Amino acid sequence: MSLPQPLRGVITAMITPLTRKGTLDGRGLERLVEHLISAGVHGLFILGTTGEGPALPRSLQSDVIKATCQQVGGRVPVIVGVTETVLEEAVELTAKAKELGAQAAVTSAPYYYPASQAELLTYLEELAAAAPLPVFLYNAPSNTHHRFDPATVRSAARFPNIVGLKDSGCDMIYFHCVRESLRDRPDFTLLVGPEELMAEAVLLGGHGGMCAGSNIWPRLYVDLYNAAAACDLDAVRRLQSTVMRLSTTVYRVDARESSLLRGMKCAVAELGICDDGMMPPFEPFDDAERARIREYLGELGWIHTP
Amino acid sequence: MSLPQPLRGVITAMITPLTRKGTLDGRGLERLVEHLISAGVHGLFILGTTGEGPALPRSLQSDVIKATCQQVGGRVPVIVGVTETVLEEAVELTAKAKELGAQAAVTSAPYYYPASQAELLTYLEELAAAAPLPVFLYNAPSNTHHRFDPATVRSAARFPNIVGLKDSGCDMIYFHCVRESLRDRPDFTLLVGPEELMAEAVLLGGHGGMCAGSNIWPRLYVDLYNAAAACDLDAVRRLQSTVMRLSTTVYRVDARESSLLRGMKCAVAELGICDDGMMPPFEPFDDAERARIREYLGELGWIHTP
Amino acid sequence: MSLPQPLRGVITAMITPLTRKGTLDGRGLERLVEHLISAGVHGLFILGTTGEGPALPRSLQSDVIKATCQQVGGRVPVIVGVTETVLEEAVELTAKAKELGAQAAVTSAPYYYPASQAELLTYLEELAAAAPLPVFLYNAPSNTHHRFDPATVRSAARFPNIVGLKDSGCDMIYFHCVRESLRDRPDFTLLVGPEELMAEAVLLGGHGGMCAGSNIWPRLYVDLYNAAAACDLDAVRRLQSTVMRLSTTVYRVDARESSLLRGMKCAVAELGICDDGMMPPFEPFDDAERARIREYLGELGWIHTP
Amino acid sequence: MSLPQPLRGVITAMITPLTRKGTLDGRGLERLVEHLISAGVHGLFILGTTGEGPALPRSLQSDVIKATCQQVGGRVPVIVGVTETVLEEAVELTAKAKELGAQAAVTSAPYYYPASQAELLTYLEELAAAAPLPVFLYNAPSNTHHRFDPATVRSAARFPNIVGLKDSGCDMIYFHCVRESLRDRPDFTLLVGPEELMAEAVLLGGHGGMCAGSNIWPRLYVDLYNAAAACDLDAVRRLQSTVMRLSTTVYRVDARESSLLRGMKCAVAELGICDDGMMPPFEPFDDAERARIREYLGELGWIHTP
Repeated sequence: MSLPQPLRGVITAMITPLTRKGTLDGRGLERLVEHLISAGVHGLFILGTTGEGPALPRSLQSDVIKATCQQVGGRVPVIVGVTETVLEEAVELTAKAKELGAQAAVTSAPYYYPASQAELLTYLEELAAAAPLPVFLYNAPSNTHHRFDPATVRSAARFPNIVGLKDSGCDMIYFHCVRESLRDRPDFTLLVGPEELMAEAVLLGGHGGMCAGSNIWPRLYVDLYNAAAACDLDAVRRLQSTVMRLSTTVYRVDARESSLLRGMKCAVAELGICDDGMMPPFEPFDDAERARIREYLGELGWIHTP
Repeated sequence: MSLPQPLRGVITAMITPLTRKGTLDGRGLERLVEHLISAGVHGLFILGTTGEGPALPRSLQSDVIKATCQQVGGRVPVIVGVTETVLEEAVELTAKAKELGAQAAVTSAPYYYPASQAELLTYLEELAAAAPLPVFLYNAPSNTHHRFDPATVRSAARFPNIVGLKDSGCDMIYFHCVRESLRDRPDFTLLVGPEELMAEAVLLGGHGGMCAGSNIWPRLYVDLYNAAAACDLDAVRRLQSTVMRLSTTVYRVDARESSLLRGMKCAVAELGICDDGMMPPFEPFDDAERARIREYLGELGWIHTP
Repeated sequence: MSLPQPLRGVITAMITPLTRKGTLDGRGLERLVEHLISAGVHGLFILGTTGEGPALPRSLQSDVIKATCQQVGGRVPVIVGVTETVLEEAVELTAKAKELGAQAAVTSAPYYYPASQAELLTYLEELAAAAPLPVFLYNAPSNTHHRFDPATVRSAARFPNIVGLKDSGCDMIYFHCVRESLRDRPDFTLLVGPEELMAEAVLLGGHGGMCAGSNIWPRLYVDLYNAAAACDLDAVRRLQSTVMRLSTTVYRVDARESSLLRGMKCAVAELGICDDGMMPPFEPFDDAERARIREYLGELGWIHTP
Repeated sequence: MSLPQPLRGVITAMITPLTRKGTLDGRGLERLVEHLISAGVHGLFILGTTGEGPALPRSLQSDVIKATCQQVGGRVPVIVGVTETVLEEAVELTAKAKELGAQAAVTSAPYYYPASQAELLTYLEELAAAAPLPVFLYNAPSNTHHRFDPATVRSAARFPNIVGLKDSGCDMIYFHCVRESLRDRPDFTLLVGPEELMAEAVLLGGHGGMCAGSNIWPRLYVDLYNAAAACDLDAVRRLQSTVMRLSTTVYRVDARESSLLRGMKCAVAELGICDDGMMPPFEPFDDAERARIREYLGELGWIHTP
């Protein structure tokens, strides 16, 4: 399995199936991988923000990488989130990912200390030199509180094994700036994070999305990607409408920021795929919240409700 | 001249031509209006953020409305920015705009005090009841520091003379949320502010943009709108690339936030259309900065440089 | 009445007594002025954030200045808030304030457009040259979204009629920076806005506070100022404790940011001093909220509750 | 060595002496500990924000704890910063700290995911139940992007081994709110982080500060604490003036946020105490910057400059 450059399509930002005791739900993970690949997703991104990577103990991180790579068996690329605050440990996790069979890493810069663009770039240079896998930059300011400026992305794109950007910044002007500044690099992958923005990113020239919602209903996002890539605007608008319905219901059961992640794991559990345990500081939905998720899924026609 | 509902196309967020003494450049304003209408823009939005509305003394605001409406002569709708902190004075300016021949107003809520969504909605209800013109909501959080939540927009859309939204929030997820929540209101106009986002807004179902860059080169934005409306993606991508080049050069001569507005006024002046005086606290570019603007315009092929 | 330099003590950031119809409660204003002066406050600051200055129509602003100056009759300085977005109108309001008998103005820079420190300083220079009254700088970032950096304050302090700073930024490190940078200017007045910070500001060398809570119970803040000025730490701690109790109850009846102002006006009304009408977008408390305010005032021993 | 409750005085937020190769400067650490204890500081806080805790590999963290506890030999309490994003690993580091001889931990909540107050409190409850050392809460919003609300602190203070708060939020209104809400808990330690705020915190009833500047000149902060505790305002103001001079010079050599930490390590190195190596993404000052630090230290009279 080699990594296409650029990588196109829908890469699922995969949740980590966990039991209520905080251990890996191994059977659930197998079912989830099949659920995704059978629907045609073009890759899996594990241990990212959606995958609770930064909240998982080291050994559990290894278990997830290993189990996923084994189940995938080279059918699509497996990309591992590396969101460490210590350079040495970021390199170690990347090496572990390679050893266990992954094709690439997605990495943020350290996110405890505010850092300047020059400092971020130095960090990326050191990481790129030491990491044994191709690396995507992870622009995720609402989690890391730093942003890779377009000029920083452009500079980092010159380091040999930095191969793309996952932009979760929700700022399409930024995305277009980066895209324009890298017009001479058709091999450099540009993916957006939020699924609500994948269609326009692809219509304007981006390569795809790392969609979290595709955990629940992968076919929707694959169809949307295909419609955008084929410039079928009627289909794009119809599918985007469903994307927005999911986003404004399942992800907004309460006002907490964790509502998105808790809603998503609950929905996947309600579809019978895996358990919805979560790592601290988060907890799965209670019965009343689960009932609302069932209702929303019923309205979308994704489960049968009496 | 009646106001189309919805209003579609490129509505120029017009700069206010000012002399270096801070008085209206009347001849410049006439030339600017002709520059825009002859290129096919679908409306003019005056006294907005780009028009320095909130920095203009009252009497000058009236002069701008009067001179613009007179020069336009009903060829396209004239829409007036109303960004007051006092309800009574917002109503007065709207009445003055109607009296002088404008077709609509674009209004923010008061922006000195942080306010809740319920308080914003009450304000909009009182304004809608008292304003004698159709009103667009002005979502401009980087200037007003409040945002009209999608639910607030939906509620306000029920007030009789609230006819649309100008969204300058740079957040396409927000725009899509609003759009989906108003699917049953095809008459309610949805325009984006930032010109860099007009193409995708239109591709996904929005009605157009209030583009500031169209002061400089209106044909570019009219062509882009038409390409998006016709779903000609090749043209969209080609034109969007020029939009981004302008945005990352002319608007970024220095690091100040005023660089956008100062660069735009300087560029229009360099095209020989009008003076580039500015209201406090801003000042026109100096000679070195003007030279860079000329250089950028030359690279875009919009002026002849030796 | 001349303005002491520096101005020391408790300057009440006075609420504007309004009827439920939005007109001036003239008798209430007279009672409020007497309530404050008889308790020993050292000045009145009208039309500030607490005074709803930015939400009052021009004519009502004049009425408030006139009625206050008349009632005060030169017993303490009257200082007028000038928070305009147009330079020319800021100068006009300052001239009007002088004409009606006020001793000074407190002025922010325009707050619609984000501006650089250099732009802010140019604005202050032009304002200082044109304003016919001594001017305090108003550092109020949560309302104006700009901050006067310590170096900007130091530069502005050299303009002839800029006489002091009201710092409402809630950042004591900033206050100490400014204070240190102006050690050679013992005449330059340094006041803090938030009443919760007056004690420490005075203990460390500041001149006093523009306390909003002194509308309700002026003696508390006068006593606290005197205790801090006399370095009576036991009294400071005891009085500060009451200040914090007021702040965490009367100002926090609901989660809206307007809760502070609505709670304060309600409390003054419950003490029988004046009406609690408010300008849009805010509304007075309802009966349930008023009952909570009565309860809090009863617990503080400021009203008799059965 | 048992932990006083409350813990009073100056606790140095100790830098981690590192060589330019990123290894522990063991001899430097010994000198630094003696430099601090001989000046009378009341405790050491290691592996915090100042100590680059979140940027140090696990094994280096252990080395620092071990070497510090050994050198201190029970003369003052040693408190260890625990800023992990994984609950299990936070508990492990606390256990390691106890094993190596530390007296307490200072812990943030996980800082990758935005979390609600209820989620933060649940996390603190689980941590408190599992951690084998007394725990101080670490309120550090500019690094962790969450804040422990006063009500959350009050609730957490009921968990058996939560013994105090280090508040680095730079918001004295918050500090006073917390202090008032815990008036019935004289054993609960309240320390401020920023050294510029220690004096007023102590004057108003707080217990002391975790001062980073005391790495450089510990006597200054010990004297300031003593002056505040003794209510000697003349001395407080004189010493505070020096604190502000350091803060506005040594910590502000460039505009990067890392300037504070780099300046501090450089200053300690210039005093001949230890090396100034730093962990990625930060780098030590270059020669020109070092020269400015020398100049500042000379002006403060702390080194002899020709």
